[in-house]
Amino acid sequence: MRTSIATVSLSGSLTEKLTAASRAGFDGVEIFENDLLASPLAPEEIRARCADLGLRIDLYQPMRDMEAVPADVFASNLRRARHKFELMSRLGADTVLVCSSVHPLAVDDDALAAGQLRELAGLAQEFGIRVAYEALAWGRHVSTYEHAWNIVEAADHPALGTCLDSFHILSRGSDPKGIEDIPGEKIFFLQLADAPLLAMDVLQWSRHYRCFPGQGGFDVADLVRRVLHTGYAGPLSLEVFNDVYRQAEAGPTAVDAHRSLLLLQETVGVTAPPAPVVPTGVAFAELVTPDAEPVASLLGALGFTRTARHRSKPVDLWQQGEARVLVNTGPAGRRDGTSLAAIGLESPDPAGAALRAEALLAPVLPRRRAAADAPLDAVAAPDGTELFFCATDRAELPNWRADFEDVAHESGPGGVRGSSGGVRGIDHLALAQPWHQFDEAALFHRSVLGLHAQESVDVADPYGLMRSRAVTNADGSVRIALSVGAAPSDDTVHAQHIALATDDVVTAARRFREAGGRVLPIPANYYDDLAARFEFAEGELEAYRELGILYDRDAYGEFRHCYTRTVGRVFFELAQRDGGYRGYGAQNAPVRLAAQHTVTGG
Amino acid sequence: MRTSIATVSLSGSLTEKLTAASRAGFDGVEIFENDLLASPLAPEEIRARCADLGLRIDLYQPMRDMEAVPADVFASNLRRARHKFELMSRLGADTVLVCSSVHPLAVDDDALAAGQLRELAGLAQEFGIRVAYEALAWGRHVSTYEHAWNIVEAADHPALGTCLDSFHILSRGSDPKGIEDIPGEKIFFLQLADAPLLAMDVLQWSRHYRCFPGQGGFDVADLVRRVLHTGYAGPLSLEVFNDVYRQAEAGPTAVDAHRSLLLLQETVGVTAPPAPVVPTGVAFAELVTPDAEPVASLLGALGFTRTARHRSKPVDLWQQGEARVLVNTGPAGRRDGTSLAAIGLESPDPAGAALRAEALLAPVLPRRRAAADAPLDAVAAPDGTELFFCATDRAELPNWRADFEDVAHESGPGGVRGSSGGVRGIDHLALAQPWHQFDEAALFHRSVLGLHAQESVDVADPYGLMRSRAVTNADGSVRIALSVGAAPSDDTVHAQHIALATDDVVTAARRFREAGGRVLPIPANYYDDLAARFEFAEGELEAYRELGILYDRDAYGEFRHCYTRTVGRVFFELAQRDGGYRGYGAQNAPVRLAAQHTVTGG
Repeated sequence: MRTSIATVSLSGSLTEKLTAASRAGFDGVEIFENDLLASPLAPEEIRARCADLGLRIDLYQPMRDMEAVPADVFASNLRRARHKFELMSRLGADTVLVCSSVHPLAVDDDALAAGQLRELAGLAQEFGIRVAYEALAWGRHVSTYEHAWNIVEAADHPALGTCLDSFHILSRGSDPKGIEDIPGEKIFFLQLADAPLLAMDVLQWSRHYRCFPGQGGFDVADLVRRVLHTGYAGPLSLEVFNDVYRQAEAGPTAVDAHRSLLLLQETVGVTAPPAPVVPTGVAFAELVTPDAEPVASLLGALGFTRTARHRSKPVDLWQQGEARVLVNTGPAGRRDGTSLAAIGLESPDPAGAALRAEALLAPVLPRRRAAADAPLDAVAAPDGTELFFCATDRAELPNWRADFEDVAHESGPGGVRGSSGGVRGIDHLALAQPWHQFDEAALFHRSVLGLHAQESVDVADPYGLMRSRAVTNADGSVRIALSVGAAPSDDTVHAQHIALATDDVVTAARRFREAGGRVLPIPANYYDDLAARFEFAEGELEAYRELGILYDRDAYGEFRHCYTRTVGRVFFELAQRDGGYRGYGAQNAPVRLAAQHTVTGG
Repeated sequence: MRTSIATVSLSGSLTEKLTAASRAGFDGVEIFENDLLASPLAPEEIRARCADLGLRIDLYQPMRDMEAVPADVFASNLRRARHKFELMSRLGADTVLVCSSVHPLAVDDDALAAGQLRELAGLAQEFGIRVAYEALAWGRHVSTYEHAWNIVEAADHPALGTCLDSFHILSRGSDPKGIEDIPGEKIFFLQLADAPLLAMDVLQWSRHYRCFPGQGGFDVADLVRRVLHTGYAGPLSLEVFNDVYRQAEAGPTAVDAHRSLLLLQETVGVTAPPAPVVPTGVAFAELVTPDAEPVASLLGALGFTRTARHRSKPVDLWQQGEARVLVNTGPAGRRDGTSLAAIGLESPDPAGAALRAEALLAPVLPRRRAAADAPLDAVAAPDGTELFFCATDRAELPNWRADFEDVAHESGPGGVRGSSGGVRGIDHLALAQPWHQFDEAALFHRSVLGLHAQESVDVADPYGLMRSRAVTNADGSVRIALSVGAAPSDDTVHAQHIALATDDVVTAARRFREAGGRVLPIPANYYDDLAARFEFAEGELEAYRELGILYDRDAYGEFRHCYTRTVGRVFFELAQRDGGYRGYGAQNAPVRLAAQHTVTGG
């Protein structure tokens, strides 16, 4: 199907919006009147620009408070409409949106509304223009799609149809079933927006909190299925008023937007892109750093062994159990400091995963490799993290490990693959997201990787509220916690981290300390509170207190965890997850964040 | 009365919060449990720190879901309470807050609730602690203050009283009249918060949008009057959960908070600080600049004449009609670039205005003047703008003008004081506010200067939504428009400006252009829309189009205005206000902002 986006959904000048929409792959745009008024381009120039960019102008939105008004007001409205129809002829736009009236003088009279809309449609027809009449959720007398359709039906004019908007329909809790009773050819337009399920004034909700389908709580797919069932053949068009997207760069927002429509089309069954290939584990986490020593020293104290080195790049492989950490001292580390730059996702079908990612607009990364290296497919997540789709030691697939050459080393008590520090593997990875891309990140991981997004939780940092949301696969072998601050700000503390899975955090933390590692110190007050809240076995709480171990419990099990100091933007967590505990210790995050600020003097 | 603030209302570590509260003049604090848990200080150290800072610990908040629960849950609650009472003894806190239960197992049984609270109070009494029971607006079975009081009354224990919270009472629309039926000695605590009037889920509203009294829409003063009527003798204590204050620097937030309580006490009549002295006009606007030439050239084209120079500082006075602009090439301009640094407010009683400002915690500025200069009282607004209280050519008062020496000049057609450019005076001043201080700024101008704050309006900039709010005196001779972006960001476009009043903007703009000035170009599309919306006299619209003049109309009158190019952070507006128009052209702001971005290439 054709895809379209309202210019109000993107930031910047009209030119920037059009360019972003075109580059992201949209077929058309709805031009919001303010964007046209503020543009130095004449309508003919906008038309030419759109044509050059391969964009159809699917809709223009200049009308307000048109119908069900006194005769003098309507006369002035018609005068205005004629001006706008002339403008639309210059623009090459053939559909105009008319929202149900909120005029203070509008009367509750469907016959009057139908009559005035018929007259408007007659005028529009002279210009080859169609009028799409839509019920605003807060319309003065017309606020449901059924009511708007009844008026359109009564007006009975070929140039008059209805426009359906998923926000206006679903925010009111209307049953979309009735849509199937509207003839498809009388649905002139379909606007789509999702929204988080907030109990708030619908006008404020609509103007500030809309989001792209799949990012909120509405069943937009169900509504679209019903609309398609009528035979509707127009575009799927996004109209999203969102305070964050108004500020974010238009380019990435447009990609995010188009991805949401690609996923929606797949969901309703009108397209079949390559299926998601859900990752089955974390093959490796890759740190870049300008100086390997501090990271190596930390990994060593955690019980990791440097087992191999890349054949052609300055990259070391450190390993313990199934936890593998690459330490890359190439150019990226010199540019970005020590940070978590890439994740290797164990994939049942790396090539298929890459095809899926590409189909869903994930930027495919150039393969920075020597001729002899194994082919590794990689894409960039919205935060810039590189995601590699790879296989570890599986006969039928190229092995990323083959690019590494074993190094001589003293193996620990458990041998090379043993867990000298008590680490089994990677429990989860935590990535701080750019402020404008939190919702985008969740949709990306869901649609591109086929992960499941958990509920978002608020976490109080001493210097602002953070939000955190985990994406996981079904068995929890891939867990990524995405977090975002309340505002763009210093992110030295809102850092990235690697949580290492252990079956015995007390022993692991003690070994770490004995090997010279320093755990993040946790205040004594925290342990006094644990003593008040829970009853522990003899000596248990004392061990936590000694080792800086935090404790949490949910309906499923228990979580014990502690943190290392931070190197650059990265720190490690030792995590013991028992009895099916599902969370990430969010309850303890305020204490951990405050402790990190104390250590860094922040 | 004693004033107190909950640590959750301020950002940072517990130490930072306590310091900020003390410096702002609070007498006490409520310690929020998470702040204590996350602090490396032991309770005894916190107690000592508070004592050093002159702060009493008025309340501790560690209890949740205490009452109306099954016996085993209550037993565990009592165990926890004992721990917390021991902690409070170490802390030196004698009042504990218990909010009505939201426990999933809580039952609707007032007798059970009263019995359990009586038992808790008995335990508290052993520690010399009082229990203040409060109804959460979203409490499972107890959600009104009357209900909470009934339970306290039934429990009938000397160590059990009630806590009233203005947010919980007013957000539910409860009638505060019933407060007067509660004996004052049984009101153990009073928590105050205001909030904007939002139709939203009360829990979200409470957790993210509370603000300080006077910043929102609740009649907090009426509630406080009723509480005082009972004989309540405890502190007025602020408990404000607000996403912005969580991020803002604690110091300024604490000052803002304390100012709100000073104003509240004045409103309810328990204190009588020096009365506000409302300014009666704008004596001058002062620009600082590293280079006088571009500003001088702009002022010259606008019809201003350089009439005088300061006797001891590198400051020129430019004048036209009653509009006076100081151009200061001292150190501040070299530091900040060209910006609007100070406003001279014409005051009936400059010394009294300064006393008022000082009493309401406005930072009093050191008088940077030579011995011979006239005394000028000045304070800093939250955005750093210096506000001078002064008198112009009034016999009975020191004249700020006396510090300036007339310079030889060619006077324009109207003489020195004439309006060669058609400018009568200053219509308004527009100041971009730091992101965290928008609500603070409005309360400052209201309480310190006695100005009236108008409703806040949303304005769409191409790169994000802005909010704007004007503060004015009764006759409109002082108008200041405060604006803030949706996020901390580039503010080269969200600049400061000086709007000059004219009776004929067409003539003024034409003269400006003829004198070599360049007006901000406005797109032709804007004028096509004006033609569609309004009917104009012959030639009128053509003149607007030619001169970049914008047009607006409200229920009272008309507004015509145009803009100069920007120098540094400053630009000028020529504004013609007819027939009592009350606004500032907000309807045109998106077009103006987009045009400014186009010019700056932003």
